[in-house]
Amino acid sequence: MPDFSIGVDLGGTNLRIAAFSADGELLEKVTLGTKIALGRDHVIKEMCEAIDELARKYRSSGAFRGAGIGIPGIIDLESGMLAKSANLPGWEEYPVRQEIERRLGTAVYLENDANAAALGEKWMGAGRDVPNMAMVTLGTGIGGGIVLNGKIWHGMNGMAGEFGHIVVEPDGVPCGCGSRGCAERYASATAVVRMAQEAIASEKAPALKKALGADVEFNARSVYNLALQDNPEAKQIFQRFGKSLGIMLADIVNMLNLDMYVIGGGVASAWDAFESAMFQELLERSLIYAATAPDDRLPAKKASTVKGMTRRRTIITQALLGSDAGLYGAARIPIVGE
Amino acid sequence: MPDFSIGVDLGGTNLRIAAFSADGELLEKVTLGTKIALGRDHVIKEMCEAIDELARKYRSSGAFRGAGIGIPGIIDLESGMLAKSANLPGWEEYPVRQEIERRLGTAVYLENDANAAALGEKWMGAGRDVPNMAMVTLGTGIGGGIVLNGKIWHGMNGMAGEFGHIVVEPDGVPCGCGSRGCAERYASATAVVRMAQEAIASEKAPALKKALGADVEFNARSVYNLALQDNPEAKQIFQRFGKSLGIMLADIVNMLNLDMYVIGGGVASAWDAFESAMFQELLERSLIYAATAPDDRLPAKKASTVKGMTRRRTIITQALLGSDAGLYGAARIPIVGE
Repeated sequence: MPDFSIGVDLGGTNLRIAAFSADGELLEKVTLGTKIALGRDHVIKEMCEAIDELARKYRSSGAFRGAGIGIPGIIDLESGMLAKSANLPGWEEYPVRQEIERRLGTAVYLENDANAAALGEKWMGAGRDVPNMAMVTLGTGIGGGIVLNGKIWHGMNGMAGEFGHIVVEPDGVPCGCGSRGCAERYASATAVVRMAQEAIASEKAPALKKALGADVEFNARSVYNLALQDNPEAKQIFQRFGKSLGIMLADIVNMLNLDMYVIGGGVASAWDAFESAMFQELLERSLIYAATAPDDRLPAKKASTVKGMTRRRTIITQALLGSDAGLYGAARIPIVGE
Repeated sequence: MPDFSIGVDLGGTNLRIAAFSADGELLEKVTLGTKIALGRDHVIKEMCEAIDELARKYRSSGAFRGAGIGIPGIIDLESGMLAKSANLPGWEEYPVRQEIERRLGTAVYLENDANAAALGEKWMGAGRDVPNMAMVTLGTGIGGGIVLNGKIWHGMNGMAGEFGHIVVEPDGVPCGCGSRGCAERYASATAVVRMAQEAIASEKAPALKKALGADVEFNARSVYNLALQDNPEAKQIFQRFGKSLGIMLADIVNMLNLDMYVIGGGVASAWDAFESAMFQELLERSLIYAATAPDDRLPAKKASTVKGMTRRRTIITQALLGSDAGLYGAARIPIVGE
């Protein structure tokens, strides 16, 4: 029997823990609520008990290689501490990795959740056949992870891959980071809701107002459903979404020239509402993309200008593992390395 | 005596060849005109003769480790051929590396000129003490090179590091690449001249018109000299330059979180005219930069928000090797590896 590892996805709402075989098969998944309000020690205790239980169960079938934990925050890889996590108050300046290792008696690896998702798609998802890829996670904001030669590029402080703060509109909407016009102000769930609210408030979107007016707690999915029903104002919001995402991706392509860019996260399910605007922007703004796009997207004129370079295609595609990507990626670390 | 290598900078105007000791000391430099019009074979012959002459001279003092050649164009590292070079007609689809290796009887390495400059600054210039850096070369356009763990990140087709085509103004000035508002349309020698011409044509820059009016062939340096003399319109052009460069750099910092970003190329000598606008934009648009900037640039408020991450500083600085950077970098490859 193959060895196994355990991946953990410590989210704001759910704590999910799963055992994987060393060749990437999901053996068993457990979902618990994350009782963050009960404090760090409580969450760590519950997590360790669940890991331990799974580990005992599969220990008879192969060696337990360790646990990887995806955490929403910036992680100091050397110390195994959280440098910053908006969603986990009280977890900073505490030896998280060391404490969990002590309790479990096995190797433990911490990773930022967006990076864990990227590693998951690399291991068993869309990126399994390419050495170099970036993952863009479209959720309440935009998360990013860069995989070079099969490993995460962390940057010097673990802060690389902040795609959501690439500037797509220099004088645009203010962002919590202090900048304006960041990509995640136009291409995230939060952005879709804001753009819909603005359209309604401007009195220029009567159909949207009528459709959403009664629904005071409408979300990105409500707007997407209207776009599917051909509501022109909802469609326009997703065109703006796609255009901004396309500018952001063109910048990444021009900078990194990777094999693949994987789009995941909850809002990626609105793919058919934004992909056309996204690809149009990419073809216009990235000569690298235009010259190396898959044949069905390749404009002949541009391809001929860099014909020597067209052997390897630039793929931009949807993620395959859904909300399990981070679990897969966390479990890959004990097997493949950080 | 230490081993030595030879670096070549094959530019559009000059062909420069220099011998370096393996520890990075420039031993001797030769400058020839690049007679591109006489054709590829003539240039290769002249280059090989000059390399051979230098190699014979230093062979008595140590082993000749090989020659690195910086070339303006996209290079296919596997085949050693130029995939694309606008400035070297007739060099494409020809086994450049193989032919030069055959003539010299030694190892030959080709590298894109912007990447060679980055390697030079890494080896003996501004970046000598950091493992990860990017170099931005401000010339007629903007060149870029990314150094990760001491090596160039080439991307899958050798096209990584195209910083000049990062979008800084989505609806901005059209670019030859097919996009609009690329960084190099605002932060290059060409851009300075265009912005000055536009200002004069608009009749909104009387002082600039008066100062440059007689000089039909004015260049970026003319505009810079006027900025130094406090001409408000020239100063405004370099503020726009700095702002655009700052947006571009913020995108790179947010994406890659490197130790250092080195600004070189001819127009970098206008540093004091654009640095203030550049740093202002960076501090506003990159939380990573603001939190990890050197102490004299560090806004206390922002630093405290990511205090766990401030141990390693993000340095943005001028290049040190001037126009020799590419020579150094080309010579480093036979010593340190591609």
